[in-house]
Amino acid sequence: MPQLPLLPRLPQLIETKEEFLRWRQSLISHSVGLVATMGNLHAGHISLVEKSFQENEHTIVTIFVNPKQFGPKEDFAKYPRTLSEDEEKLMASWKRLTPSKNLIIFAPKTTEEIYPPKFLTTISVGKISKLWEGTHRPGHFEGVATVVYLLFQIIKPSIAYFGAKDFQQVQVIKKMTTDLLLDIKIMACPIVRDHDGLALSSRNQYLTTEGRKQSLVLPQTLNLAAKILIEEDNFENFSAFLEKTKENDDRWEYLAYCDSETLINLKQKQPNGILLGVYKVDGTRLLDNLLITLTIKN
Amino acid sequence: MPQLPLLPRLPQLIETKEEFLRWRQSLISHSVGLVATMGNLHAGHISLVEKSFQENEHTIVTIFVNPKQFGPKEDFAKYPRTLSEDEEKLMASWKRLTPSKNLIIFAPKTTEEIYPPKFLTTISVGKISKLWEGTHRPGHFEGVATVVYLLFQIIKPSIAYFGAKDFQQVQVIKKMTTDLLLDIKIMACPIVRDHDGLALSSRNQYLTTEGRKQSLVLPQTLNLAAKILIEEDNFENFSAFLEKTKENDDRWEYLAYCDSETLINLKQKQPNGILLGVYKVDGTRLLDNLLITLTIKN
Repeated sequence: MPQLPLLPRLPQLIETKEEFLRWRQSLISHSVGLVATMGNLHAGHISLVEKSFQENEHTIVTIFVNPKQFGPKEDFAKYPRTLSEDEEKLMASWKRLTPSKNLIIFAPKTTEEIYPPKFLTTISVGKISKLWEGTHRPGHFEGVATVVYLLFQIIKPSIAYFGAKDFQQVQVIKKMTTDLLLDIKIMACPIVRDHDGLALSSRNQYLTTEGRKQSLVLPQTLNLAAKILIEEDNFENFSAFLEKTKENDDRWEYLAYCDSETLINLKQKQPNGILLGVYKVDGTRLLDNLLITLTIKN
Repeated sequence: MPQLPLLPRLPQLIETKEEFLRWRQSLISHSVGLVATMGNLHAGHISLVEKSFQENEHTIVTIFVNPKQFGPKEDFAKYPRTLSEDEEKLMASWKRLTPSKNLIIFAPKTTEEIYPPKFLTTISVGKISKLWEGTHRPGHFEGVATVVYLLFQIIKPSIAYFGAKDFQQVQVIKKMTTDLLLDIKIMACPIVRDHDGLALSSRNQYLTTEGRKQSLVLPQTLNLAAKILIEEDNFENFSAFLEKTKENDDRWEYLAYCDSETLINLKQKQPNGILLGVYKVDGTRLLDNLLITLTIKN
């Protein structure tokens, strides 16, 4: 293109996205926090909501049991739906903390509110969606990525809060948000645990009394594995511990030490690693994880 | 939730997307037209640009040869890249028509401008992406949907103009835009043809002199088929014509009469149908189509 002075109204050639975005951007200041849930709220969810209250003028809590993230043999039909109790819990937290802030509960009345008839589109987040939960629940993260995208489009939050218990889910959502150029900050919040260490989950209520006791193997093993990883100089001994643990108890679906961004299995200690575990009790898959930050000496 | 008066700052329960969107929407008036191209502009592209000049204050022409929409054995490497000529053509059209309007050419310098390292996400548009071109070019429409989505996110147009020659592409983009809640109008503009009837395409330049002559079979057959469909009362005779045409000339990749929204093959006359054809000459796949609007008598 001939060199023209950069006057308004004259054609310009732009060659980088950043430059274009600078040109195009219209800044609207807003502070909207989103907590996306499937309802049946427990203290883990409420901790996210209260974090959002602290940081935002407006907090939106969505309650939607998303059919697309359940496999055909999973618990979509029996997943607990407790809208009135959820409203009461949110109301109580709001009254206690922040009656000067705005709280909106968005609870789509029908599935068609989110997925209109003839809806065809799926968002997939490549390899990170195929590991671990992706292997055991094919299509799960496509359902998660698609619904979270749609909620983001509707809500337009500035920040969205997710529980770190579903660590892989948070990583998938972070990647999707970056890749799809959504201007939303994704915040992973600490796991909230019961007094005995079991991570809170709506699915814990499926457990029998006996199962509830057995379930403690999950957090206890993660803690023990972390201790071994930190104290043991020989990585093979640590790997052998994970392998032996799984061999000796078929309730383990997986137990692995992974890169905390890509979730790829690690073959040696690394500064940012995570232990991921799924332990199946009474037919219920319990998820837990432990982030392990190490200072590696050379 | 207890019945509360609807005052600002009080929690509200919203149960429909529309209601939420009304609450959330911040209206920004803008009029930005987008013409997304792979460059090597011809009169077909220029007709889209001039339509955008007519209707918008700002026109953005993107020039980006998108690797994700080419199969591994396709012509990505040899696809014609002619940025200076493209700029001159756009400049000429702009000077002739609308020096009071704003034209921006967005020509990403590298592939990484659009797909940064570690990009993982794919947008797929279900069944409509699997038919016709989707069958012959697996992954093609995933590449198209993903790049168009990204361009939409960067450009944020109010309206985007596409050529009707790539009819299925336009339908895929329309569905993606609706499903992903993008507030962008998709406009399909009429096919621009050479004096002898061949639809303009950057790939026509791959044709030999002999191939260029043979290529006229494509528009001529579509016209003849349309004539038969309109005049013939017996749909089987029309179907037999399509079948016989394909049998007698193996240059046809497909030739079909379909629903103009779902692109599903039709087994009878319908008010909104389309003839789709792909004819392969000198190793080049030539696409064309003909919309047929009928008044069906009962």
